[in-house]
Amino acid sequence: MGGTDAIRVAVLGASGSTGGELVRLLAAHPGVRLVALGARDSVGRTLAEVHPHLASTAAGGMTLEPLDDAEVAGRAEVVCCALPHGASAALAPALLEAGARVIDLAGDFRLPAEAYPAWYGFEHPAPAWLRKAVYGLPELFREEVRGAQLVANPGCYPTPVALGMAPLRAAGLLKSGPLLVDGKTGLSGAGKAATEATTFVATEDSVRPYRFPRHQHTPEMERALELAGPAPAPVVSFVPHLVPAVRGVLITCYARAVEGATTDSLSETLASTYRDEPFVRVLAPGEMVDSKRVRGSNVVELQAVVDERTGTAVVAGAIDNLMKGAAGQAVQNLNLMAGFEETTALPVAGVYP
Amino acid sequence: MGGTDAIRVAVLGASGSTGGELVRLLAAHPGVRLVALGARDSVGRTLAEVHPHLASTAAGGMTLEPLDDAEVAGRAEVVCCALPHGASAALAPALLEAGARVIDLAGDFRLPAEAYPAWYGFEHPAPAWLRKAVYGLPELFREEVRGAQLVANPGCYPTPVALGMAPLRAAGLLKSGPLLVDGKTGLSGAGKAATEATTFVATEDSVRPYRFPRHQHTPEMERALELAGPAPAPVVSFVPHLVPAVRGVLITCYARAVEGATTDSLSETLASTYRDEPFVRVLAPGEMVDSKRVRGSNVVELQAVVDERTGTAVVAGAIDNLMKGAAGQAVQNLNLMAGFEETTALPVAGVYP
Amino acid sequence: MGGTDAIRVAVLGASGSTGGELVRLLAAHPGVRLVALGARDSVGRTLAEVHPHLASTAAGGMTLEPLDDAEVAGRAEVVCCALPHGASAALAPALLEAGARVIDLAGDFRLPAEAYPAWYGFEHPAPAWLRKAVYGLPELFREEVRGAQLVANPGCYPTPVALGMAPLRAAGLLKSGPLLVDGKTGLSGAGKAATEATTFVATEDSVRPYRFPRHQHTPEMERALELAGPAPAPVVSFVPHLVPAVRGVLITCYARAVEGATTDSLSETLASTYRDEPFVRVLAPGEMVDSKRVRGSNVVELQAVVDERTGTAVVAGAIDNLMKGAAGQAVQNLNLMAGFEETTALPVAGVYP
Amino acid sequence: MGGTDAIRVAVLGASGSTGGELVRLLAAHPGVRLVALGARDSVGRTLAEVHPHLASTAAGGMTLEPLDDAEVAGRAEVVCCALPHGASAALAPALLEAGARVIDLAGDFRLPAEAYPAWYGFEHPAPAWLRKAVYGLPELFREEVRGAQLVANPGCYPTPVALGMAPLRAAGLLKSGPLLVDGKTGLSGAGKAATEATTFVATEDSVRPYRFPRHQHTPEMERALELAGPAPAPVVSFVPHLVPAVRGVLITCYARAVEGATTDSLSETLASTYRDEPFVRVLAPGEMVDSKRVRGSNVVELQAVVDERTGTAVVAGAIDNLMKGAAGQAVQNLNLMAGFEETTALPVAGVYP
Repeated sequence: MGGTDAIRVAVLGASGSTGGELVRLLAAHPGVRLVALGARDSVGRTLAEVHPHLASTAAGGMTLEPLDDAEVAGRAEVVCCALPHGASAALAPALLEAGARVIDLAGDFRLPAEAYPAWYGFEHPAPAWLRKAVYGLPELFREEVRGAQLVANPGCYPTPVALGMAPLRAAGLLKSGPLLVDGKTGLSGAGKAATEATTFVATEDSVRPYRFPRHQHTPEMERALELAGPAPAPVVSFVPHLVPAVRGVLITCYARAVEGATTDSLSETLASTYRDEPFVRVLAPGEMVDSKRVRGSNVVELQAVVDERTGTAVVAGAIDNLMKGAAGQAVQNLNLMAGFEETTALPVAGVYP
Repeated sequence: MGGTDAIRVAVLGASGSTGGELVRLLAAHPGVRLVALGARDSVGRTLAEVHPHLASTAAGGMTLEPLDDAEVAGRAEVVCCALPHGASAALAPALLEAGARVIDLAGDFRLPAEAYPAWYGFEHPAPAWLRKAVYGLPELFREEVRGAQLVANPGCYPTPVALGMAPLRAAGLLKSGPLLVDGKTGLSGAGKAATEATTFVATEDSVRPYRFPRHQHTPEMERALELAGPAPAPVVSFVPHLVPAVRGVLITCYARAVEGATTDSLSETLASTYRDEPFVRVLAPGEMVDSKRVRGSNVVELQAVVDERTGTAVVAGAIDNLMKGAAGQAVQNLNLMAGFEETTALPVAGVYP
Repeated sequence: MGGTDAIRVAVLGASGSTGGELVRLLAAHPGVRLVALGARDSVGRTLAEVHPHLASTAAGGMTLEPLDDAEVAGRAEVVCCALPHGASAALAPALLEAGARVIDLAGDFRLPAEAYPAWYGFEHPAPAWLRKAVYGLPELFREEVRGAQLVANPGCYPTPVALGMAPLRAAGLLKSGPLLVDGKTGLSGAGKAATEATTFVATEDSVRPYRFPRHQHTPEMERALELAGPAPAPVVSFVPHLVPAVRGVLITCYARAVEGATTDSLSETLASTYRDEPFVRVLAPGEMVDSKRVRGSNVVELQAVVDERTGTAVVAGAIDNLMKGAAGQAVQNLNLMAGFEETTALPVAGVYP
Repeated sequence: MGGTDAIRVAVLGASGSTGGELVRLLAAHPGVRLVALGARDSVGRTLAEVHPHLASTAAGGMTLEPLDDAEVAGRAEVVCCALPHGASAALAPALLEAGARVIDLAGDFRLPAEAYPAWYGFEHPAPAWLRKAVYGLPELFREEVRGAQLVANPGCYPTPVALGMAPLRAAGLLKSGPLLVDGKTGLSGAGKAATEATTFVATEDSVRPYRFPRHQHTPEMERALELAGPAPAPVVSFVPHLVPAVRGVLITCYARAVEGATTDSLSETLASTYRDEPFVRVLAPGEMVDSKRVRGSNVVELQAVVDERTGTAVVAGAIDNLMKGAAGQAVQNLNLMAGFEETTALPVAGVYP
């Protein structure tokens, strides 16, 4: 857990699934010293009690502290917020003003202020900080991340959508018109919350759409593509589905291909864009992405196909939602912000099978 | 298994998954007498040996016979062919000419003859019979099924696509343009074949597209919508995905809604179309289909949503692929052909959880 | 759902998993008319709302009524109680005194009165009725069930343990000494309750013992073997485990074999005992029980092996815990009590795969 | 993948599940340089082709070479054999005589020579080397491993059995008599082989015993307990079961406790024995082991309970069969043999959920 000159990091929301994954990665990070774990309901318990799978790590004996401990910002150089939506928008400004750098894993700093009432159900309390936030998708916005004080860590679904679509749009391979995104996710995206819908008995052998057409990742996809350019970004219709898996997000994007575009030309555009990226694997034509292959790793797999019969461009992408879709990408951003090798403490091999 | 005046039925391909499901249903059918079970590799074995879960049924002791036993047609009034693609096209004509009625569960009688080389890889050997085949989707083509000598039992994916889209097209609620179909299926559609891709270790926690853009259900969807009308049917882009489930197909269809179309108007159109159908359940706006709820039943669940931000009409449908997507629908067709109550031996309740 | 001369049945606790399964079976029972569905939290909702998979059954529109409606007993000839432990002990006496016959699916009438404080945590409120209760394992106590007013439907684990061990004990093939029972169960035994431990994310890929050594099925196994004889029954050590499955209980029983006992002699004893039983399938030596094969059916699979190196007799048994382990066995008891064919409305074929 | 002074390691059998796991760990090991990957059927393919989840590792581009390349021993200081049973017994002697150190992950060097015909079906070809082999269970035989030229890496089931039982036997807490071991395993222990029994459709919701009473880990358990002492070791009856999981082995051991032994005394004995072991986690009384918590880690969880009603001592243990049960333990042995920190490249945190 880092030597004495390691960077001091706090994790707020350490008792949740994403928080636990973040601690798992940071506890094995040679340049990081975990100085505080914040929680709400689990204050006073040890990490080992809240996350027994972390009992044998160096952080296993740490005690969870109250979230609003103002003094946390004094102890930590970087604060990672893995809190429910709405909590970090309230909490982060004080941390930032005290000089801490913040990586927010919720949706609180990802959209323009005016989008929050409709998509998140609250008026954004810190629009000035919101304007300074950098969208932390390193492969598209690496230089901005390096210098950022506040990083909005992307959502799980928007990550592969933006990585898959941005290069094709930039290369002029797609017609304008709505982007249709069909998402499939395992249950870990829903966190540890136990509801009748997240039980094993309700989930095994069940495939079902949910929260359509109001999923808050819809405007985030539009925003990410707008940031990546060129303007105007497409409107997005997004239908997420729950499938009987734990980790893993697979997205299938449907757009109109320009005349002459082929599976080969799309695949080649993606491959050349990401040739030097350690965490992006572009498949050769004919290969199919598989969420299981990237499980436990920080890798995104991408695949492009043109259905020439109908003029449809299809891009599929797969990630581990807790890694490249949340905690892994946060560590990647941390590595950039702190000047570490970008791949430090981030596996490129999936834990397969 | 039926009295002496029961209808005499043979199942060819009884050793496969679909064949087993068909025997399971027919063994409990009060109007059916199973007179022959045909197989290729398992000839001479008993049903109980090939399908131990059927050991305690009345058919458990039946011995599997060679497929090409010409005399089968003499014994059976109805022959159900649950054979690999291509086999029944070769086998059925002799049975039909001997006077038997045939329900084919493969794809051999579902498309126009000219489509077979491209989509199934063979020249159709019996185009005259092909022209006489009735597409066995009872909710759309009930009267034709009653009198048919040869019924092409629909594929799993096209069943909910056709049932969901046909009424909306007929009501003029959709613009012309390509229909995008995103399919999710459990592994039972792949049959009992053991390959590295169908093992448990490769499938748990894995979501992956497959066989895109060449899945043979693509032209079948176009054909079914053409038969249901109005012309012209849309071209279809179809991306199927494997998810870690056994039974269950869920399809999500994306089309352009006409101005003014709403979730309510689409839902109401489906609900009124299928009000008296025992096997179609149209969900109220806001409810979400779930493949698990129909598992083990012959029911299809349908749901329609309009995303007004983008003008997209989304129709989702869920079936048990071995039931309404194969064997159950075959029994429904048999019931119509033989004059039984259409719901005989077909559960409307899913085996849940 | 039965004609006008059908037997009138009420299900109390219809909103739970076991209650839902019972309604699923009874709604398709030709000799039963469901006259009342009782519930606690879901009063006023329809069956279709509480169990959407039953929406298309004849009972889908029935409304759930308060549990303590004294008038239920006036309407129903047989009342099935699928309530939490402790509830039917309080509720049943009034029903019984009003003349109804009762099948209790909880543990409230399975043990001697003196066992309740230690194993269930309550003093039994109706010891007189408890003494009259018949233990409803038809293969062992068929005649008593026929005439019973109060049937204690057995627990899921004790059912295959008793069926597997009783004939071997009766035949003198086992030495005295403790009986060790290692149980494996899917999650449906835990009902619909959503806790962190029953979520999909906590269950996939998880195998774990639970509630050892205090599981309340331990004394029930001892009691069932005592009732079946010969005395004295062995003491039982029982370790149940949760495995990532929904339906299915598999038990593995370890005892000491007498000298000369072999796999063949044990298997033959079981086979001859159950030769005419429709719901018991004894496997030949070398075959292995599989909980999946009996899923959705009322069948129990049994297998016996002697490990001659160590003198250990091993009996494995598999059931669907919601069927032969709960609702299916209750219907089997109902069939006996009402004079129906014992197999009415009870599948012998598993819904496989 | 190690600097120029790193230890040179070859993996034979790199195309299998265990081989892939070994390469995954070794590719991230700072003191190891992978110099050769051997295979049989996949010769000439790259690691990325055979194990796509390893495509982005430093070893992704390595080409698989023929197994019997005598020159491998010249290149590698340590050769890890992850081959089918029987193959390394034939292959290893030449490697050893050429001076290489060998870690064998198969069962070829775990038993006395006379046990091979009965349990593995072959006459051991190298009994002299067999006598020199060290049983590579570091927590019990650490010093022998450090100096060994040939290490027999333990089987998955025997690892938690030996770790759980040895201290209790040494402390005199158990009576003599047979040890009963009930094992539950995920499918990854069966490797990548695709058979009808290992498909997803046959496995989901299936619990089933297998290969009883002839599983080859039975005599290995007896041998490991004999090596750990005190003599005489108990005879073992072992019933392994397949459960619907990928990774994970859970064993439940049943023995007779001496008078006065309690859950507390057994737990305390285990806890004090393993207090300083990084990879052994002994649970407090009342806590339950869970195979999921150790998934992806090299940790074993142990739990002990005395059922005082019956005098039974129960020990449960959980590991990731590919890690502590195979590749992880092999790396632990390698670390000892090469003088690295024992925990190098071996996670103590599970990849949870």
